[in-house]
Amino acid sequence: MAVDQQITLHHPARAELELPEVLHTLSDPQRLQIVRELAGAADPLPCGAIELGVAKSTMTHHFRVLREAGVIRQERAGTTKLTSLRRGDLDSRFPGLLEAVLSPADEPARVPA
Amino acid sequence: MAVDQQITLHHPARAELELPEVLHTLSDPQRLQIVRELAGAADPLPCGAIELGVAKSTMTHHFRVLREAGVIRQERAGTTKLTSLRRGDLDSRFPGLLEAVLSPADEPARVPA
Repeated sequence: MAVDQQITLHHPARAELELPEVLHTLSDPQRLQIVRELAGAADPLPCGAIELGVAKSTMTHHFRVLREAGVIRQERAGTTKLTSLRRGDLDSRFPGLLEAVLSPADEPARVPA
Repeated sequence: MAVDQQITLHHPARAELELPEVLHTLSDPQRLQIVRELAGAADPLPCGAIELGVAKSTMTHHFRVLREAGVIRQERAGTTKLTSLRRGDLDSRFPGLLEAVLSPADEPARVPA
């Protein structure tokens, strides 16, 4: 196993999660979509499993932002990363938030002003 | 009554509220504090009633961002504005969100990494 595969990705501890940062992280529609897909998955997903039709570098950025805010966990598995939602940590620190964010209609109908 | 006092401030309709924008609006600690103070008030509050120790122009900015995202309602009342939380609209569009955002501890203890 190569050394770089042994480097553990940084994840903030549960107590370090901060509401403003989590809200900011979720305020991007693409990141919100990633969270929804992870919430609907029974197991951790490999990087390529979520397709948003954006550049791979954009996805990498979104995953990093989500991980650093404590919203997702990423574990190296060989040459890929397995990603999962930190549902327990989020529910513990911010009860009801994830459920509220996941439950509403994705795209409300635009009405003329 | 002067004409400028009759101009109605723009508020998005309930159906126009969008989750990413609302989350972004709430991702600022000062705006989150404003929302908490409004949530705890029985009646609409005049501008000066919320003191965050920041410049008046900063407060004006925060109120505008909150109003344009549909989080608060501002009504002119003579030379001041009365501000209230759009709790019904938020609860209708994003059930549980406001409760989740208002309920957690404000400042989690920082733990060493």
